[in-house]
Amino acid sequence: MELTVLSDGHFMKEALREAQRAFEKDEVPVGAVITCKNRIIARAHNLTETLNDVTAHAEMQAITAAADFIGGKYLKDCTLYVTLEPCVMCAGALQWSQVGKVVFGAWDEKRGCSTVGQLYHPKTIVKGGVLETECGDLLRAFFQKKRKL
Amino acid sequence: MELTVLSDGHFMKEALREAQRAFEKDEVPVGAVITCKNRIIARAHNLTETLNDVTAHAEMQAITAAADFIGGKYLKDCTLYVTLEPCVMCAGALQWSQVGKVVFGAWDEKRGCSTVGQLYHPKTIVKGGVLETECGDLLRAFFQKKRKL
Repeated sequence: MELTVLSDGHFMKEALREAQRAFEKDEVPVGAVITCKNRIIARAHNLTETLNDVTAHAEMQAITAAADFIGGKYLKDCTLYVTLEPCVMCAGALQWSQVGKVVFGAWDEKRGCSTVGQLYHPKTIVKGGVLETECGDLLRAFFQKKRKL
Repeated sequence: MELTVLSDGHFMKEALREAQRAFEKDEVPVGAVITCKNRIIARAHNLTETLNDVTAHAEMQAITAAADFIGGKYLKDCTLYVTLEPCVMCAGALQWSQVGKVVFGAWDEKRGCSTVGQLYHPKTIVKGGVLETECGDLLRAFFQKKRKL
């Protein structure tokens, strides 16, 4: 059987579907999926308002769910796809998880972890700007809607 | 009725009791409590091994529990007491929570957030080294026990 290796864009679209779910719940629209061997093992979206909990970022929930799926806390063979650049908290969690790769969509010039420095695990591969426009457009639409209210 | 204002040492002893509980579960012994108006509203200890989850630090659980108790995600009027200096992930979460004050025991020269920079909310008051020896002794005893196994 031939294995089709799916692209980063493919999985980012799945993260975007999660972000859309956050948008529909009136949450800042950020979504994430975690893959292992070309397969999605965790998906989540921002729930900070719904849960009244600043720690309920998409990435944090996805890390917890992926570790639960794997049955171990290290995600060395996994890739996290997230529609917005991770913040300091999420980058710190990703460092502990030793995640293999982080792929994000839009850059976060205010709260993105790269504004602070290199916070990921030294072995983690990081790639930003995948479907940047689509990911950013959803965020811009959300904040525009908020300002109109 | 006269209100007795309890000291930072008093609440750090409570955080140490939580750390002791972690020790007994063979977890890296870090404990935390969150207070609001001189009263403990959340307590937690490290559960990363038990839950197979790198995000299950004492501080993270305490933040979630305190926000749940308050019914809001901001902890401006709260103080977090934790036996070890918060890591990058926990400092990031504390920044989002806008916690009023952070008091920690032992410094973490390797993974403490101060090795990276100033990550807390600019209005958060930070105090380190409260019951530093007691907090550090428990950690040292844990790692000494681990090395002997």
